[in-house]
Amino acid sequence: MADSKVPTVTVANVFRGTLVHSTRENPLVILEDALLGVDSNGKISFVERGQELENVSAKFGFNSTVVTQLTPQEFFMPGLVDTHIHAAQYSFAGTALDLPLLEWLQTYTFPVESQYSDLEFARSVYTHVVKRTLRNGTTTACYFATIHTDSSLLLGQIANDLGQRALVGKVCMDRNGAHEHYKEGTKESLDETSRFVRELMKRKYPLVKPVITPRFVVSCTADLMLKLAEVAKNNNLHIQSHISENKDEVELVKEMFPDSENYTDVYHKNNLLTNKTIMAHGCYLSDEELKVFHETGTSLAHCPNSNISLCSGMLDVRNVLNHNVKLGLGTDVAGGYSTSMLDAVRRARDTSKALTIQDPTYQTLTFEETFRLATLGGSQALSMDSQIGNFEVGKDFDALRVNVAVPDGPIDLVQNDGPKVLLEKFLNLGDDRNILEVYVAGKKVVPI
Amino acid sequence: MADSKVPTVTVANVFRGTLVHSTRENPLVILEDALLGVDSNGKISFVERGQELENVSAKFGFNSTVVTQLTPQEFFMPGLVDTHIHAAQYSFAGTALDLPLLEWLQTYTFPVESQYSDLEFARSVYTHVVKRTLRNGTTTACYFATIHTDSSLLLGQIANDLGQRALVGKVCMDRNGAHEHYKEGTKESLDETSRFVRELMKRKYPLVKPVITPRFVVSCTADLMLKLAEVAKNNNLHIQSHISENKDEVELVKEMFPDSENYTDVYHKNNLLTNKTIMAHGCYLSDEELKVFHETGTSLAHCPNSNISLCSGMLDVRNVLNHNVKLGLGTDVAGGYSTSMLDAVRRARDTSKALTIQDPTYQTLTFEETFRLATLGGSQALSMDSQIGNFEVGKDFDALRVNVAVPDGPIDLVQNDGPKVLLEKFLNLGDDRNILEVYVAGKKVVPI
Ligand SMILES: [Zn+2]
Ligand SMILES: [Zn+2]
Repeated sequence: MADSKVPTVTVANVFRGTLVHSTRENPLVILEDALLGVDSNGKISFVERGQELENVSAKFGFNSTVVTQLTPQEFFMPGLVDTHIHAAQYSFAGTALDLPLLEWLQTYTFPVESQYSDLEFARSVYTHVVKRTLRNGTTTACYFATIHTDSSLLLGQIANDLGQRALVGKVCMDRNGAHEHYKEGTKESLDETSRFVRELMKRKYPLVKPVITPRFVVSCTADLMLKLAEVAKNNNLHIQSHISENKDEVELVKEMFPDSENYTDVYHKNNLLTNKTIMAHGCYLSDEELKVFHETGTSLAHCPNSNISLCSGMLDVRNVLNHNVKLGLGTDVAGGYSTSMLDAVRRARDTSKALTIQDPTYQTLTFEETFRLATLGGSQALSMDSQIGNFEVGKDFDALRVNVAVPDGPIDLVQNDGPKVLLEKFLNLGDDRNILEVYVAGKKVVPI
Repeated sequence: MADSKVPTVTVANVFRGTLVHSTRENPLVILEDALLGVDSNGKISFVERGQELENVSAKFGFNSTVVTQLTPQEFFMPGLVDTHIHAAQYSFAGTALDLPLLEWLQTYTFPVESQYSDLEFARSVYTHVVKRTLRNGTTTACYFATIHTDSSLLLGQIANDLGQRALVGKVCMDRNGAHEHYKEGTKESLDETSRFVRELMKRKYPLVKPVITPRFVVSCTADLMLKLAEVAKNNNLHIQSHISENKDEVELVKEMFPDSENYTDVYHKNNLLTNKTIMAHGCYLSDEELKVFHETGTSLAHCPNSNISLCSGMLDVRNVLNHNVKLGLGTDVAGGYSTSMLDAVRRARDTSKALTIQDPTYQTLTFEETFRLATLGGSQALSMDSQIGNFEVGKDFDALRVNVAVPDGPIDLVQNDGPKVLLEKFLNLGDDRNILEVYVAGKKVVPI
């Protein structure tokens, strides 16, 4: 390409202060007094040392007076990536957590999801959930909507309008939907999926893409799964589903598919395991199954709040990571009651510590590792790590400006804490009040 | 006593709206459109039905125009009782959670606690922790301070000045203090305890009392324990300590006291188990030991955040309750990272659910039960249930005015939820922003 065709990219924003992020090699990298530049396309144009300001401003052609200086209690961190959240279930988040998975679906979830044929109800809840998760620092969300195409499109539109990076899935389920008004036929499910994908892609939202979403094996015929895999392949799309969340479910799948070796094999046989597939939970996956995850590039969304709240199980994250399976964290609203990825970070560590209580030789996840899972790990799980996940030059600037000492906030600082302690306090004790600003692709989306 | 000597008690405050609280028989009682009167001594003078307003105002002599009407998204609940919190450890809350108990004490805790010889440092942290816990709805706190008498007295003064109901303990530890500047001799520990008790009682704070505080068996000689028990007995005081938190600690105690049957027996032999004794943790207590707890009236402070964060263990609360042992919840700051009793409620349920994951026949604690543990249960554990814990007429009005739908709060309401759902959402998703007002003994202490 000739130079003349390269658009002139100018530096749009420069920040000076502490950056914390993760790399593949290091779960926590702290850059004090750093300079970070964001270009007019929302990409990180440089990360340099503060003392180099003069040189950097000369090189990138910005006036050093435009630099935004962070206070000592502030830092930037990468935006949080929620790899698994049911937007439609937000209406009952924080309630209805007294039943195990399969009963919980029939009793609470399907009746609520059936309401999303009503576009105005959908608009209300979806606006709430996108605003809420953005405010909580979720810059990227991988959403399940419902079986309804139009309200699923509406979720995509709301995410786009509010500036959140999102994968949005119209849910597919052509069997075992017990609710009179919440089921679809195989053909209908496929046709509507095609319409959903076509419509959403036609809108050319820069940050919102469709994701093929068979609910889980129990709700889908092999025919449906196989054909959904084709739709995904033909359009180079992400795929999301659930796997091995709960023991009864695993047993049921075994009964339903006696010819498959295991739960993973059912998806594998139906071509749903790709390097753009993300499966939620995986509490009871065998090492053999994890190897298939690794080989196919399939990733896991670890949803610890949900797994505890529904008494589903405890994922051995260390073992997953040892198998080189990509793993991110998910809130799994409303099996998980919290929309906050800070909660997911805390619960991931709790689960790891619970496993340590059972076996003191267990290699507990560190807070640095859970921080990475919620940011870079999530971006890897969604196969977006070439674009987001940390502060590498050339990636989109998806970031949170955090102030640990915000007035009327949840944290008291009584000592001169360094940035590592500030991050740890934020991860353990912080909430949306500490998140002063949220950026997605360089654009400030909170406050709006 | 002649009638003329009975002071005239007038109704000082009347509220109309939803009340939620617990009784011995029922973990969750919801009273919609109730009338609650508070007298000038801060006691609950009546709980009646809203429609009886005219009769009630006539009977109790108040003008019905003075009634404060709650909105439909508001309710009153009893104040939260934190049965175990280390005020001095608040300075590092949310950090330093990567070591098991005994190493954690030596590495992080003792060095920090040694700083409280500095009264100005103590004043700063203690002011923060009392303000923070009040704001989080902790109307009653059972505090560990440090070995320093004067700063422990200061904690009592701060709690009194800010209006929190508190038990305050000067910590006693005459062995195994590894830190050069953080230990005391047996005589010194006893003399200072006597001075602490004398000084604090002399101040006649209405809501703040001393509690005899041997740190735990590992830090105390039998001589010290026996004599502290005497001080408690002679002054009819509460006693607090730790028991059976972590397996290594249990082993160590066994080695240190080979003639005792078990950990409980060590305290029992030294007369420290009374019906005003509260022991933290108890993760590894045998049924035999729980029977001794029951027989002596000793209670347990369940600190689930701490037990998970330090990988200590998981208390089987159901088994404790089945043994008719009084049990409350504690934050155990800073082994637990959160000062919020809402967190303690959530983590208590998580622990119960983790036990359910291990054994699906386990009888999981319900959210209603954890609500009771944090309020009435705590009051029972502190032997204060004749005075606080629920909205029975004659008890002190320790209460939170909660608004689930507060603007800029953490909860979105998208449906017309009833009071039970509102409570559940608050317990799962709420924070200090939802707590509009906090009352202790009828006095509004938040906002101040
Ligand atoms: Zn899910
Ligand atoms: Zn403690």
